[in-house]
Amino acid sequence: MSGKTANYIPGLEGVVAAQTRLSRVDGQKGELIIGGYPLETLAPNASFEEMIYLLWNSALPTALQLESLQNKLATKRELPFATLDLLRNVAKTRAPVMDALRMAASTLSLSSEVAANGDDIDADAIALVAAFPSIVAAYWRLLNGQPPVMPSTDLSHAANYLYMLTGETPGEAKARGLEIYLNTVVDHGLNASTFTARVIASTASDLVSAVTGAIGALKGPLHGGAPGPALDMVFEIGQPDKAEPYMRKLLNNGERLMGFGHRVYKVRDPRAEVLSQAAQAMYAADGDMQLFELVKHVEKVAVELLDEYKPGRNLQTNVEFYTALLLHGLGLHAELFSPTFAISRVVGWLAHCFEQQQTERILRPRAEYIGETEKKWVAIGDRSGKFSYV
Amino acid sequence: MSGKTANYIPGLEGVVAAQTRLSRVDGQKGELIIGGYPLETLAPNASFEEMIYLLWNSALPTALQLESLQNKLATKRELPFATLDLLRNVAKTRAPVMDALRMAASTLSLSSEVAANGDDIDADAIALVAAFPSIVAAYWRLLNGQPPVMPSTDLSHAANYLYMLTGETPGEAKARGLEIYLNTVVDHGLNASTFTARVIASTASDLVSAVTGAIGALKGPLHGGAPGPALDMVFEIGQPDKAEPYMRKLLNNGERLMGFGHRVYKVRDPRAEVLSQAAQAMYAADGDMQLFELVKHVEKVAVELLDEYKPGRNLQTNVEFYTALLLHGLGLHAELFSPTFAISRVVGWLAHCFEQQQTERILRPRAEYIGETEKKWVAIGDRSGKFSYV
Repeated sequence: MSGKTANYIPGLEGVVAAQTRLSRVDGQKGELIIGGYPLETLAPNASFEEMIYLLWNSALPTALQLESLQNKLATKRELPFATLDLLRNVAKTRAPVMDALRMAASTLSLSSEVAANGDDIDADAIALVAAFPSIVAAYWRLLNGQPPVMPSTDLSHAANYLYMLTGETPGEAKARGLEIYLNTVVDHGLNASTFTARVIASTASDLVSAVTGAIGALKGPLHGGAPGPALDMVFEIGQPDKAEPYMRKLLNNGERLMGFGHRVYKVRDPRAEVLSQAAQAMYAADGDMQLFELVKHVEKVAVELLDEYKPGRNLQTNVEFYTALLLHGLGLHAELFSPTFAISRVVGWLAHCFEQQQTERILRPRAEYIGETEKKWVAIGDRSGKFSYV
Repeated sequence: MSGKTANYIPGLEGVVAAQTRLSRVDGQKGELIIGGYPLETLAPNASFEEMIYLLWNSALPTALQLESLQNKLATKRELPFATLDLLRNVAKTRAPVMDALRMAASTLSLSSEVAANGDDIDADAIALVAAFPSIVAAYWRLLNGQPPVMPSTDLSHAANYLYMLTGETPGEAKARGLEIYLNTVVDHGLNASTFTARVIASTASDLVSAVTGAIGALKGPLHGGAPGPALDMVFEIGQPDKAEPYMRKLLNNGERLMGFGHRVYKVRDPRAEVLSQAAQAMYAADGDMQLFELVKHVEKVAVELLDEYKPGRNLQTNVEFYTALLLHGLGLHAELFSPTFAISRVVGWLAHCFEQQQTERILRPRAEYIGETEKKWVAIGDRSGKFSYV
């Protein structure tokens, strides 16, 4: 476009596209900072509503501020009629949960008409965060031939999600287990879905548009974050003494061990430890530690084998391994793992949108044109037709 | 994340994020190449279906290939039940047309279940392009208390859109006027909506997700492409002798002349000439050249005045000026201008998705963390609470 020369940077790798106060990922040290706090400080101490407040305000809330946010979220849990009606129709087509979430999230500007009458600049953000669990739970029940459960206004964000999925108020250990999971994955640097949200927000478009786009990016297989397969392997292993032969066989066949290795982290993903502790507490409260112990054993053997088979690669436990264990312990089907991740991450997406809005600057890189420039028009009868893509 | 140092590049300005064979914008020369052809060669000669084929296949179609594409598109015009049902509900809330388009587009994976049974890798792309006019026309009629018009399978993509809006088969001049408009705006380098589509596609997500995200970006006021105000000024001017005093008054007050100036083009936007000629032919066929002549006069005076008031800035007619004239001549309300733009541009978005898919590489730049790193947990009763964003 301009006269400047510049080189194509595949994947924009290494390019710094944003400045942020939301999170810092240090893959060498195995450190994750969220909103100024090390993850290990925040995740076990904060409620998810406190995390929301922190990411949107750069500070933890006072009791009064927290109560106000809790109330706002609780009163926005009910879905607009058109959204629920859409989910009923979509369930008939058996569309995947993530597709249904994208479709339903896109309709949430329906509720912002009303919200916009107030003076609350975050009405759309509140509506989105509040509605995500309602969408996922309602759609899941519809897929399974059950009527949606109306949200409770008394429960926490995490507990209400489990309540809407099952129709039963969850015990404290389960509600807290989910909450620590939500705390842990709420933000993680400039991943592709977060970047998508920032690009859309940079045009000064609305938050519903930005979040809908981000869901679309999160769906992509290259985005990462599909925790199901990690636990599948543990189930196939079944008992501790089979761990080593099972995984040796996989590695001898040149296959990957799901749940290990990460593009950024070269030491143990700090989220793995937080989730491991949360899972331990939750399984202990349930009184059955068998699966938890098996998982710990599989992890230990896996890391040793990976060091033996791939020396110097530093393939360590990633977040997916203990995510799967924790969400499974909550009774969630693997199809709900990614949507549950989105229920947390939407808070980070929105925080990044707020940051991006502050820059008042559109994110618009260039393309390098590598095609022809002076083709001549050929009448339709004289075309050779060697291509036939469509 | 890594040990490399890199500098934050606001807006990713000047960074080359993609290589493309789809279009090249040369703002210094005032040249636009689409699929290897200068715009002036392509727009007046091609049908919109030929443009679609060109962008998706890097070549113009043979008669047989064109017929096949026309048939595929025509048979996909009817909206899924859930999509139409959603539009009925949304119309009751009076949501803007662009919001309704985003919501409805997001539901189009409903139809891909069926399409996926075939061996056509572009089934989603065909479904999206075919459905856009149906969505916009159906929603517009619902907004205006009229029942949607079922699509015709006999008409061209452009003519059928006008037919679904009005219920009447358009004359040839109008159908061709719209077609030249669609040809002209089908692709334009790496603008923010196209970039959004590429970012989402880069995760290996689906085309419906990418296009839905792109609509969200196109909605943003900073994206550009709101042609309504340019024509509003012409209507307020009303007659040729008022053009100069009216615009002098605006310029004396430090206001902008809408429809002039462009971030990239420093000479006349090449699309302006193509659209001016198309509008001229269309208004001539209608037998009333009064508005067209007024617009030509306003343009001439505006460019002279801008040179006088802002010497050296090279503020020239942009694409919005003649877009507004042409779409107005088709009988389209200004609220339909952006959605009609999207009906064309979705073809470019999809072509960029295809290109991006070929790279098999996720678009994932970095963020620079500029926040604190060692905040200590403070019990809720001890927090100062100086922030109160939420």
